[in-house]
Amino acid sequence: MEESFVPFRGIKNDLQGRLAFYKKDWTGGFSAGLSILAPTTYIFFASAIPVISFGEQLERETDGALTAVQTLASTAVCGIIHSIIGGQPLLILGVAEPTVIMYTFMFNFANSRHELGSKLFLAWTSWVCVWTALLLFLLSVLGACSIINRFTRLAGELFGLLIAMLFMQQAIKGLIDEFRIPEREDPNAVEFQLSWRFANGMFALVLSFGLLLTALKSRKARSWRYGSGWVRGFLADYGVPLMVLVWTGLSYIPTGTAPAGIPRRLFSPNPWSAGAYKNWTVIKVLPTNSYTTSEMLDVPVLYIVGAFIPATMIAVLYYFDHSVASQLAQQKEFNLRKPPSFHYDLLLLGFMVILCGLLGIPPANGVIPQSPMHTRTLATLKHQLLRRKLLAAARKRMSENASLGQVYASMKEAYQQAQSPPNLPGSSQGLKELKDSPLQMAARLGSFNAPVDTTVFDIEKEIDNLLPVEVKEQRLSNLLQAVMVGLCIGAMPLIKKIPTSVLWGYFAFMAIESLPGNQFWERILLLFTAPSRRYKVLEDYHATFLETVPFKTIAMFTLFQAGYLLVCFGITWIPIAGVLFPLMIMLLVPVRQYMLPQFFKGAHLQDLDAAEYEEIPAMPFNSTTDIEMLSRGASFADDGEMLDGIFTRSRGEIKRACSGPILASEELRTVESPLVADRGGNVTRFRGDLSPRQASKGPFTSKPSHLGKTG
Amino acid sequence: MEESFVPFRGIKNDLQGRLAFYKKDWTGGFSAGLSILAPTTYIFFASAIPVISFGEQLERETDGALTAVQTLASTAVCGIIHSIIGGQPLLILGVAEPTVIMYTFMFNFANSRHELGSKLFLAWTSWVCVWTALLLFLLSVLGACSIINRFTRLAGELFGLLIAMLFMQQAIKGLIDEFRIPEREDPNAVEFQLSWRFANGMFALVLSFGLLLTALKSRKARSWRYGSGWVRGFLADYGVPLMVLVWTGLSYIPTGTAPAGIPRRLFSPNPWSAGAYKNWTVIKVLPTNSYTTSEMLDVPVLYIVGAFIPATMIAVLYYFDHSVASQLAQQKEFNLRKPPSFHYDLLLLGFMVILCGLLGIPPANGVIPQSPMHTRTLATLKHQLLRRKLLAAARKRMSENASLGQVYASMKEAYQQAQSPPNLPGSSQGLKELKDSPLQMAARLGSFNAPVDTTVFDIEKEIDNLLPVEVKEQRLSNLLQAVMVGLCIGAMPLIKKIPTSVLWGYFAFMAIESLPGNQFWERILLLFTAPSRRYKVLEDYHATFLETVPFKTIAMFTLFQAGYLLVCFGITWIPIAGVLFPLMIMLLVPVRQYMLPQFFKGAHLQDLDAAEYEEIPAMPFNSTTDIEMLSRGASFADDGEMLDGIFTRSRGEIKRACSGPILASEELRTVESPLVADRGGNVTRFRGDLSPRQASKGPFTSKPSHLGKTG
Repeated sequence: MEESFVPFRGIKNDLQGRLAFYKKDWTGGFSAGLSILAPTTYIFFASAIPVISFGEQLERETDGALTAVQTLASTAVCGIIHSIIGGQPLLILGVAEPTVIMYTFMFNFANSRHELGSKLFLAWTSWVCVWTALLLFLLSVLGACSIINRFTRLAGELFGLLIAMLFMQQAIKGLIDEFRIPEREDPNAVEFQLSWRFANGMFALVLSFGLLLTALKSRKARSWRYGSGWVRGFLADYGVPLMVLVWTGLSYIPTGTAPAGIPRRLFSPNPWSAGAYKNWTVIKVLPTNSYTTSEMLDVPVLYIVGAFIPATMIAVLYYFDHSVASQLAQQKEFNLRKPPSFHYDLLLLGFMVILCGLLGIPPANGVIPQSPMHTRTLATLKHQLLRRKLLAAARKRMSENASLGQVYASMKEAYQQAQSPPNLPGSSQGLKELKDSPLQMAARLGSFNAPVDTTVFDIEKEIDNLLPVEVKEQRLSNLLQAVMVGLCIGAMPLIKKIPTSVLWGYFAFMAIESLPGNQFWERILLLFTAPSRRYKVLEDYHATFLETVPFKTIAMFTLFQAGYLLVCFGITWIPIAGVLFPLMIMLLVPVRQYMLPQFFKGAHLQDLDAAEYEEIPAMPFNSTTDIEMLSRGASFADDGEMLDGIFTRSRGEIKRACSGPILASEELRTVESPLVADRGGNVTRFRGDLSPRQASKGPFTSKPSHLGKTG
Repeated sequence: MEESFVPFRGIKNDLQGRLAFYKKDWTGGFSAGLSILAPTTYIFFASAIPVISFGEQLERETDGALTAVQTLASTAVCGIIHSIIGGQPLLILGVAEPTVIMYTFMFNFANSRHELGSKLFLAWTSWVCVWTALLLFLLSVLGACSIINRFTRLAGELFGLLIAMLFMQQAIKGLIDEFRIPEREDPNAVEFQLSWRFANGMFALVLSFGLLLTALKSRKARSWRYGSGWVRGFLADYGVPLMVLVWTGLSYIPTGTAPAGIPRRLFSPNPWSAGAYKNWTVIKVLPTNSYTTSEMLDVPVLYIVGAFIPATMIAVLYYFDHSVASQLAQQKEFNLRKPPSFHYDLLLLGFMVILCGLLGIPPANGVIPQSPMHTRTLATLKHQLLRRKLLAAARKRMSENASLGQVYASMKEAYQQAQSPPNLPGSSQGLKELKDSPLQMAARLGSFNAPVDTTVFDIEKEIDNLLPVEVKEQRLSNLLQAVMVGLCIGAMPLIKKIPTSVLWGYFAFMAIESLPGNQFWERILLLFTAPSRRYKVLEDYHATFLETVPFKTIAMFTLFQAGYLLVCFGITWIPIAGVLFPLMIMLLVPVRQYMLPQFFKGAHLQDLDAAEYEEIPAMPFNSTTDIEMLSRGASFADDGEMLDGIFTRSRGEIKRACSGPILASEELRTVESPLVADRGGNVTRFRGDLSPRQASKGPFTSKPSHLGKTG
């Protein structure tokens, strides 16, 4: 995406780009059939549980003016709107922690002014929303999102890790609170006696760690050795929601022994009760006697103008948060085919902020880590779908006693047919390139033209070898999850059965799930890795920067980033200024562009944190070496397993799953040349034949991301 | 060991065999220096904790006649005697669960007879011990242990799994009891109120699962990626006791909040209190007025004769338990150098049973899983020691710019020097064979005679490649752990600080730690493995039976064994007949010899459960193919990692650790022949060149175990 500040050009480009795919966005979603329910459910839980929990937090902070019903409603309404008329359907919307902090601040402010008071709190926030929306319109029209490329990996990953820290902090705080008497409750109740409080806290530890550990285990189910493929697939797809159900069920075992309040469960109003809707009326323009007090027009003019001040902060926050969430959901290694839509989405966010403001509910915006989680789970879905098709085609051919060449031709054909959009140049590179590598085929499978020996040839593994990372880009999963969030409002009596401690376990799970694939996190781990084991990082993650950048430089860069992260985390602890932490992350743009090059070599910075403005001209496609493609394809050597390790990394490198893939890749290398049969050291030797730049940039430049294509 | 029933021949052979190594048993132990403390501490905890816990159980069952002080004393005394004058110093002695069950039965019996009563209980058990000892003498003198070879893997592994189940059952029972009011306590105490009991139970869940999970994690520390090698080694060696300390420390966090009894801690008398020794006097022959009631001679003659009945049961139990524990500690794959000593050890056990009986303490016998755990941890120690020596020798040579051949010669020399006994034929086979495989060396490291390129040649990995499994066979670790168990009696006030829930976690840890390497357990897992993933079992465990025996036969055999196990487990639940469960396992000898061959093919039985009486004549050593040796050596490809996977399997196959080794082994195979570069299928193809018998028996017959050598 080129940087252009011509008014409306960004929005126009976005609309043109996405409209071309709009029909496909829906047909593609429906063509997946019931499989679409796996990513939908996964994201629904990841989206709904924090929103419910933030709602509980808001209820305490705003004396019940806003509750989980409002946060769920906002998430559902904005999610449905965005999934239908939004630009990038991979982006997941929700009421996020910064919004909660912001609303808490505004409630305290309104409460302290007798002109407003808690009665006019929501009316005043409506004005804040109006101003915020206007600022967002301005930013969107003027093309502010085109500088999104200046948010490099440095800023995006730092923000991702900060959010993970905030989630983990919430999990720990929540667990500690389980040992304390909650505010707004009767401290003399049986369940708040010292002994029952202690029992409740211990029970909470059991439930939250139980959920965390089993949820983490179930995500890896696909690579388990035990159970049928169906059971393993089901557990991997639906294991996390299932575990929430299981641990909620287990929490009922002591019923009868322990008093009713143990363990503590969600506290939210019944949305069907009479008073639940009293706030949803700030927009009412026709004053009736009973409702005039909650009208927007009752807010004094001074406060209407003054609302501009918090609005600027929220606008900056949303601009950053929405764009980075979208960016992280569209990382280069996902090999997305459809264009991004930063400007148009920001414009639409403006409209949704006004809508929420007028409804008296807190607005939703693009959320981390749910958005990148969404893309990742859709990549798994796409892999499963493609695998199924190629397998059917290949099996049909093999039953006809076809040669290896014919089998591959049929798979290639099936792959091409499965492509949507089908006509993009280079859309089947991954598959084609591997197929045309006769060296490898001959070595592994004998003659290319003789009939396939089905006893030796493992077609399933072969397909996993060939398939590149692709994402099922469509709108259906986003729409369905938003609708399900909306249904939660009606299902509140059921949802209230979930123990709060299960929630804290889920928060910790979300924090941990967001770490893999975050290079910053992996570099932090690298600092604690024994020098003799560093080659393992190279092996598992294929982290080329380890080969091209001296360790000392990596350490310096990582320490700087970690220090910056801690400062940002510290700022969130400051009562009101806390909401400014996105400014700290925006500050990273000039820091990265002007300050870091003073301390680090350009080539090193490029390898650690590629920025487009420093980019070296792309090499023509054909110069990508066979070896690059081989080692790339090899990342998928093992059947279900690769789905566990689908998190991909920058520069088109693909993170490899545990045992199988390493093996396969080593085999291939060995066939190529005995000199590269060794690990660690020799890989470097081989790479030395290419320039380090070529070696590390090859796959990236040969497969330009959609970001590069659209501009 | 040939089967011979000539009186005293077995004892004489054992004594001759072991006396030749007696001095070495001590010098070898002291030569290890401080490293000996790692296995010592590990086994001390594995030994002391169950003994303390069984003592607690005895205290409840015998109304305090026997306590943890007595069980600790017996374990310490018998352990010290056995480690100094016993035959096989790898065998660990302790008071075991069957002994506790037996003593409970005898207490109930004595209590129900007014001629005995609880006052003469210990005096009567002394008579039982005398009879038991006489029976053990008889068995030992007549050479009953020479039929130990008829206890095949089938019986030994079934017994091992049964003990694991009993340990796990104790862990679960203990945890459930944490929610209940203990017997013999005041049910009106604060800590037994419903709320505090519930809190105690939940706290127990946290502590026991905390200990279990962290202990299991710490055992794998050597292959962690993080932390310095020193920290990782320390955690792997001392992590389990450290975790007991850590979780005991954490259990004190709620002090001040919770009443004193939460969490529950060990309940044992202070050994320094006045009454603690009142029972230790059954042997007193000079009657004083106050003590005559507890004299052996006060027992009516009828009961002295009747004591023969329980004595037969205990004798059978000890004969079996002691021999199988010794056998499991000397499994073939440990490649032990020193001879076994079944008959002499049984004779010595007889003397110790008399001694314990006269002291009025329950006797100790050889225990599972501690004994095989002991051997395994000594194999780790030996590997570390050899590695250090070879590394020093090789580094010295490399610094002199030596060629690859010279470096290997120096390592071979260092290896030979480290051998004790040094003159056994074939003692350095593993190392020599690998060294002489120029094919592999040339492919991996270039010329054999040029100076070594130290940038490419990873000497540490190379050494791990070369070292075979060997065990540091000595007496020091056994003596030290027994002395430490004895010191526990004095340290009782400290030990009583350990929460009982940590104990239950430790029991679960012991049960789980005893599973790897148990082929029966791995076959059970295989039944639950998806057919498409069975090749992984082959890959990880190198389980040749998977290649030579049809899956249906494996399943049938395993189901039969599992059914038999469940019957044995069921029998332990029967109140008094329960102690007869060893008879069930001895029954497996005729079942295996006469019944199973009716249902299974001889060749299959041989592969699943090699019995010496069915053995096919050993092949001469040199026929072992290079490939066999290569794949054998390759199991140790990765530095610290192999120490985690040191559990070995029957027939000389070695279980391989996760990622590294597989890779290395594949590399080697690839260099040998591209046809074996593939996994699963192709390995079988290659093996087809040898007869299946040769392929699976090769390494085993080429390295006859000490069992074969002594007979």
